[in-house]
Amino acid sequence: MALPRGRAARRAARPESPLRAFPFRQLRNPLPPVAICSEEQIERLHQASMQILEDIGLEFWDDEALDLWAAAGAKVDRSARRVWPERGLVLEAVSRAPASFVWRARNPDRNVTIGGNHIAFAPNSGMPYVTDLERGRRPSTLRDLEDFLKLAQSCNVLHFAGSELVAPQDVPPSVRHLRRMLAAYTLTDKAVRDVAHGRVIPADNIRLAQLVFGAPLPAEPVVGGVVNVNSPLRYDTRMLGGLITYARARQVTIVTPFIMAGAMSPITLAAALAQQNAEALAGVALTQLVSPGAPAIYGGFTTNVDMKSGSPMFGTPEGAQAILIGAQLARRYRLPYRGSGSLNTSKTPDAQAAYQSMWTIWPAILGHTNFVHHAVGWLESGLTASLEKFVIDAEGLAMFYHFLKEVPTTAADLALDMIAEVGPGGHHFGTSHTQARYLTEFFQPFLSDQLGYEAWREQGGLDSVQRAHKLWKDLLEEFEAPPLEAGTAEALRDYVARRALELDRIDLYA
Amino acid sequence: MALPRGRAARRAARPESPLRAFPFRQLRNPLPPVAICSEEQIERLHQASMQILEDIGLEFWDDEALDLWAAAGAKVDRSARRVWPERGLVLEAVSRAPASFVWRARNPDRNVTIGGNHIAFAPNSGMPYVTDLERGRRPSTLRDLEDFLKLAQSCNVLHFAGSELVAPQDVPPSVRHLRRMLAAYTLTDKAVRDVAHGRVIPADNIRLAQLVFGAPLPAEPVVGGVVNVNSPLRYDTRMLGGLITYARARQVTIVTPFIMAGAMSPITLAAALAQQNAEALAGVALTQLVSPGAPAIYGGFTTNVDMKSGSPMFGTPEGAQAILIGAQLARRYRLPYRGSGSLNTSKTPDAQAAYQSMWTIWPAILGHTNFVHHAVGWLESGLTASLEKFVIDAEGLAMFYHFLKEVPTTAADLALDMIAEVGPGGHHFGTSHTQARYLTEFFQPFLSDQLGYEAWREQGGLDSVQRAHKLWKDLLEEFEAPPLEAGTAEALRDYVARRALELDRIDLYA
Repeated sequence: MALPRGRAARRAARPESPLRAFPFRQLRNPLPPVAICSEEQIERLHQASMQILEDIGLEFWDDEALDLWAAAGAKVDRSARRVWPERGLVLEAVSRAPASFVWRARNPDRNVTIGGNHIAFAPNSGMPYVTDLERGRRPSTLRDLEDFLKLAQSCNVLHFAGSELVAPQDVPPSVRHLRRMLAAYTLTDKAVRDVAHGRVIPADNIRLAQLVFGAPLPAEPVVGGVVNVNSPLRYDTRMLGGLITYARARQVTIVTPFIMAGAMSPITLAAALAQQNAEALAGVALTQLVSPGAPAIYGGFTTNVDMKSGSPMFGTPEGAQAILIGAQLARRYRLPYRGSGSLNTSKTPDAQAAYQSMWTIWPAILGHTNFVHHAVGWLESGLTASLEKFVIDAEGLAMFYHFLKEVPTTAADLALDMIAEVGPGGHHFGTSHTQARYLTEFFQPFLSDQLGYEAWREQGGLDSVQRAHKLWKDLLEEFEAPPLEAGTAEALRDYVARRALELDRIDLYA
Repeated sequence: MALPRGRAARRAARPESPLRAFPFRQLRNPLPPVAICSEEQIERLHQASMQILEDIGLEFWDDEALDLWAAAGAKVDRSARRVWPERGLVLEAVSRAPASFVWRARNPDRNVTIGGNHIAFAPNSGMPYVTDLERGRRPSTLRDLEDFLKLAQSCNVLHFAGSELVAPQDVPPSVRHLRRMLAAYTLTDKAVRDVAHGRVIPADNIRLAQLVFGAPLPAEPVVGGVVNVNSPLRYDTRMLGGLITYARARQVTIVTPFIMAGAMSPITLAAALAQQNAEALAGVALTQLVSPGAPAIYGGFTTNVDMKSGSPMFGTPEGAQAILIGAQLARRYRLPYRGSGSLNTSKTPDAQAAYQSMWTIWPAILGHTNFVHHAVGWLESGLTASLEKFVIDAEGLAMFYHFLKEVPTTAADLALDMIAEVGPGGHHFGTSHTQARYLTEFFQPFLSDQLGYEAWREQGGLDSVQRAHKLWKDLLEEFEAPPLEAGTAEALRDYVARRALELDRIDLYA
């Protein structure tokens, strides 16, 4: 290897950012999942959702979807685009989805297991606005997307890179997926999640993935996207195109009803969750009618509206309950579960943003959420991605790695000899037992400040947003793209350039 | 009753603060406590702590304490002030402490149950500094103490009023307890907790309590204080005076080892918790040697130091583990458990302050902490009380009341008829089911903002600290002291005036 030069030399000359120093590994929650409903209550939610499927039915605005349901024996009204699938059909189909699978990254060291007690963190997604301390709130650009991708790559607590961390407003919608997938594959080597909008985008994404992973694609999935239900009870044309296209290619669908209780469902959480369950299971079942065994994730995004304004609320007690009960329901069907991490309604990365995000990530971790979407970066109900909030949330995720470590209780850990040696009123700071462990025993925060007041003032008196600002800037400054074969990069660029011309002329979501 | 006049009329003319509108009731956690150690691990911690008691021993810097241990049959070295109590003696004594008790308030509607799955919230305590958005950080004064007491009284999510929410630097130390107890009894009608320093202060506090509750005091305790261990393994003169005086009067001792792993104990959490367990059980046992059946609480305050600076760290993953394991240990001995709520090391009520506090209160709630000390108001490792942080933390506590409510799953809650009626693609905002429930179904935040960006900007673009500032000011403006009989108030004032003259001339902690 050549000696480091230029930026690499600068990087080598100073300590690595603590966000990069944190090792990449997957988080597991060894604790039993926290369950807030009894089995009997879960059964009641299940039964209600079965009644919704059979008696009320759902709309599927896609001919192929209606054909699939009809072929499987479901009652279908084609003119109303409505389906009333029987529970036996739905549950049998759902049972074919894998309880656990590996989501491959282009760097195999960064493959991610989805299921069981594994937890994977994916960054913010889809924000039309971006904000930071210096430049304020502004429409997202491709440059912003690239910056967020670099942060997602650098930040080892995250398992996914994206790709759609923000929605760049300076790129025409018809080619956004091409530009962001190109950026994701060239700037990161982590697992890639994109959107599931229509047939064209997922098909392009699969072709791009083939350029990276080879064609045919490996047995494990390499790409996928969130399929949102237009709750209540409707899968629209765009979402069904995405669902069918990914499922056919045996790529990942993250089937997520989009429910604000009181607006898209009855106001009661039980009704919202029964409806969520019916909607999610119908979508997962459909993936299995397309392609039995295709990887699918049961998604929960149920929260409540503010009944005064009609606005969505995030980081609420009801949202926390919904996360935990959603996980219970997903486990009932042995499906991996998707939740969220950094949800909040604050307009700035302040105390509210932080505590609402904690009200999302704590239940997500406790309930064994396998795929934590939006684990970092949210502000303003998901309209704005904040660079500082990205770092603030990353600190919280890193803390869970330490929190979920076993507390060893061997004789060496109990250290009775040291307690005896130091004795009453003594001090353990300088003992051999402490000195041998002090570098690794505790979580080393990269953002939180422990200084005394005077020392903190002397160092500028920076709050956590100001410190986070410096941290992401350092990360971008230090960034180096992971290696990618020149031929692969060229093939990706060629495909994107050629395809961009074609896509100018077609309806992406037909 | 007379018609409201003056401030009362102004108050009646505007809506009540949402912090006061929240009903006063005790929180219970119906979920099984989250346990992160196996029973075998707990047993290992227990065995290690028994070895510490028997083989290493503890120092008790008080003749009466040494007499009590010796009379109970413990091995005592009087010149070294050291005691090696056998496990049988300690466990037998501990078993006499009640598993649960009622802590009486002067308003019986505000009595608090300590134990079982009951959770009680007590405010910040002992801060030498106070800060708010307008006036900045400054030494605490009696006026600040009164303001905090008024907030604690007004804020229905809190079950305790104090009394020592801040340590007023403008009041001579010799009479501080008199002034703060007088303020607590005249400004609030909630349960009162004070300090446990020496024999004089608790004795005064008990006499003041007799003026409020009658003499002799009722069977249930009415006052008490935190007895901190001078970890490692030392109870000093001051703390033992407090412990013995309260226990003799059958008032509450909250026996809390003060352990920063790596400094006051070995660095490993297992050692820190074994030591905590030995220290706490020794203190609780001593309360029972003084007065069998006296109410005592097993306190946990174990966290870690920053090994770079030696500073304490709060709101850490290790601190969260210590809270949960401490609760497991307390349950093993059927003792009520004390933890903390709003701990953090931030110098301002920013995102760090909020997420570190959440890293304290979430495990405290999940582990069934019966007495949550410092549930609001902390900043800067407990050196500074923040008026805005008080409100920010209160919002979080209020959210747990909703989070821990059962999710009902009756047919009316499942609302299948409404799901059918609204149908696919419809809207539930205006349905009869929603309208009948929208005022009460969800938690109504008093601090969190749900506005859209433009509306938020139009309303001033205030962050959560600025909004919290307005909320505490409104609460103080609206404050009216709860009724207290004129004779009682006069007796309290007389006692305080007379006693203040005497206390000028004695050593409080002798």
